Amino acid sequence: MEKGEERVNEEEATAATGEAEAEAEVNPWEVSGKIDYDKLIDKFGCQRLDQSLIDRVHRLTSRPPHVFLRRGVFFAHRDFNEILDAYERGDKFYLYTGRGPSSEALHLGHLIPFMFTKYLQDAFKVPLVIQLTDDEKYMWKNLSVEESQRLARENAKDIIACGFDITRTFIFSDFDYVGGAFYKNMVKVSKCVTYNKVVGIFGFTGEDHIGKVSFPPVQAVPSFPSSFPHLFDGKDHLRCLIPCAIDQDPYFRMTRDVAPRIGYHKPALIESSFFPALQGDTGKMSASDPNSAIYVTDSAKDIKDKINKYAFTGGQDTKEKQRLYGANLEVDIPVKYLSFFLEDDDELEHIKTEYGSGRMLTFDVKKRLVEILVEIVERHCRARAAVTDEMVDAFMAVRPLPSMFG
Amino acid sequence: MEKGEERVNEEEATAATGEAEAEAEVNPWEVSGKIDYDKLIDKFGCQRLDQSLIDRVHRLTSRPPHVFLRRGVFFAHRDFNEILDAYERGDKFYLYTGRGPSSEALHLGHLIPFMFTKYLQDAFKVPLVIQLTDDEKYMWKNLSVEESQRLARENAKDIIACGFDITRTFIFSDFDYVGGAFYKNMVKVSKCVTYNKVVGIFGFTGEDHIGKVSFPPVQAVPSFPSSFPHLFDGKDHLRCLIPCAIDQDPYFRMTRDVAPRIGYHKPALIESSFFPALQGDTGKMSASDPNSAIYVTDSAKDIKDKINKYAFTGGQDTKEKQRLYGANLEVDIPVKYLSFFLEDDDELEHIKTEYGSGRMLTFDVKKRLVEILVEIVERHCRARAAVTDEMVDAFMAVRPLPSMFG
Repeated sequence: MEKGEERVNEEEATAATGEAEAEAEVNPWEVSGKIDYDKLIDKFGCQRLDQSLIDRVHRLTSRPPHVFLRRGVFFAHRDFNEILDAYERGDKFYLYTGRGPSSEALHLGHLIPFMFTKYLQDAFKVPLVIQLTDDEKYMWKNLSVEESQRLARENAKDIIACGFDITRTFIFSDFDYVGGAFYKNMVKVSKCVTYNKVVGIFGFTGEDHIGKVSFPPVQAVPSFPSSFPHLFDGKDHLRCLIPCAIDQDPYFRMTRDVAPRIGYHKPALIESSFFPALQGDTGKMSASDPNSAIYVTDSAKDIKDKINKYAFTGGQDTKEKQRLYGANLEVDIPVKYLSFFLEDDDELEHIKTEYGSGRMLTFDVKKRLVEILVEIVERHCRARAAVTDEMVDAFMAVRPLPSMFG
Repeated sequence: MEKGEERVNEEEATAATGEAEAEAEVNPWEVSGKIDYDKLIDKFGCQRLDQSLIDRVHRLTSRPPHVFLRRGVFFAHRDFNEILDAYERGDKFYLYTGRGPSSEALHLGHLIPFMFTKYLQDAFKVPLVIQLTDDEKYMWKNLSVEESQRLARENAKDIIACGFDITRTFIFSDFDYVGGAFYKNMVKVSKCVTYNKVVGIFGFTGEDHIGKVSFPPVQAVPSFPSSFPHLFDGKDHLRCLIPCAIDQDPYFRMTRDVAPRIGYHKPALIESSFFPALQGDTGKMSASDPNSAIYVTDSAKDIKDKINKYAFTGGQDTKEKQRLYGANLEVDIPVKYLSFFLEDDDELEHIKTEYGSGRMLTFDVKKRLVEILVEIVERHCRARAAVTDEMVDAFMAVRPLPSMFG
């Protein structure tokens, strides 16, 4: 494919039949329902990230692939193979990811793309741009411009706490950075996309404000190196790889459609599934229900209480029944969380075998999960406490990056 | 009125009845047909600029009102009286006008708003911002970004040649200047306007690209002082007066609707009719027909030839019939052009009387018009030739203005 129009199964993408009503909803503003990720790959027209690609990453980076790759958290892609082809030939690329700063406290699900992006940055030794869409959140949420900008800086601290290399990382807020070459690219993209097309992709209506219609080009253009003249001047053919959750795919489907028409490579994507809510595996965690997620601001006691009280379990009601029947691992949230954060493959396999067969109890699995989450959250808190305002300024300064490649 | 929604006669504005098909078309992209300016005032919902306002300008500025005011070239307004009220109380304002740089050579019609704006700047001693919408012209015309930017600078030279005071004038191109506070205001405006609303005002369709939908806020926000922090920092309540041709009214109808919702005064407008084409009084001059207009690049011979060959005349076919019946001044282009550019009221009256009664011949009227136009065009050419690239840079530098008020 990859010549001309992006392949999207339009029929399925816009289907609103009786059956479709029961289907999961996945778009940049809503993720709900029980998601069938195989179906989503077909519907969006992206590709499954298979073992041969993971093996190739292992070989090219000379380090074990990240646990999120090994365990299928990042499970889909567009043209990731082309990024690896280019890399193998000695051509570098850059990474682009982002965040919509709609809330002060991040939960573990928010950290996943950043943890994975940090791994990619370290493994491939490439520059990274991180977009904070404070303009988007101002337009979609009931926030003032000032509050959106404050949240952007607060979120930047959490992002920096993930350990990004300041010599390779540029973080920017749209309200601060839009202008110049970036704005020119916004206008170029806007000229290539009809209103009907954005309605088809994003489902806007005539009663939506025009800020919504104007926004997709803002999220599109960091995919083009010329949007960052202080970083990539004269490198218009540099490729871009975007790690993100799969709900952001519509933006980049649009971007990939436009890219060759304005002289750029289509950005490649590597896309994750959603970190499940404590209550069960039916979508992303909800910012409106603090008990649906573990926040990076939760105390050890909060974490213990939430896991013990709210984590949906596939274990049996009583010790006796658990010994007899074992746990249903398919629906068990503690096991799912462990598969994201317990890096030791042998220990994870051991827990799954023992817990599934009934020799291990829910209580013990939850206890191990609490240990691991408390360690992650406490480590994050320590790192975040060390992030000063001066460091935020330094990451967000419009400047050349000293270590671009290698 | 002026509280809440702008008054627009929606029924007339959107009427597409049999009768309406024969009507003139006046919108930012098309001006055609025989325009009834009284009807246009009703349709757009603006106000007629009457003699009492002109007298007030005379009194407040202690100088004779500009010929374009005296002769009704600027004939409509919105809240110009409020600008004068504020001025009388000692509150200053700023001027905002602009140009879409779609062609290299300007014709006389293009100069009219700038000549009038220069008069306003001198008479009221106020600062002025001039927007060059190179982004708009890139999106609407088949131009590259670079060509749009080049035309913007070329047009800036013609604008500067009109004699603006560099200590009070900031000229900017959208591609250069959009960003920061200006972009924040664009986003604020976008959040206040639905897609249905812009369709109602501008008539976009679903097949139009989203750049068109995104553009109206770009033309709106120079109406708000905070878009120019280097000029008006802390002066958010400064009023804005926009001199423009009446085809730009839709942009500012939208702007005036939004202004109070985001904390600004509604901009006031003072609006001109169109300079007629040589072939007759049915709209603006056409850039696609070089013989429909006098260009500032035309030689004395070009001007003489164009006036003699193409200027539609209300005079009679033969000398004898002219002596007998006189000229129809209502349709006579030389007389209309003289009413724009012959400043001497007595001489103009004399010509109209003599020509209308048949004592003066078309040949002599055209001869006098050629003299006047050649003088204007030659004066403009000399002034433009003296505009250096350094002067363009100086007018377009983002800087405080040394003489803001008084």
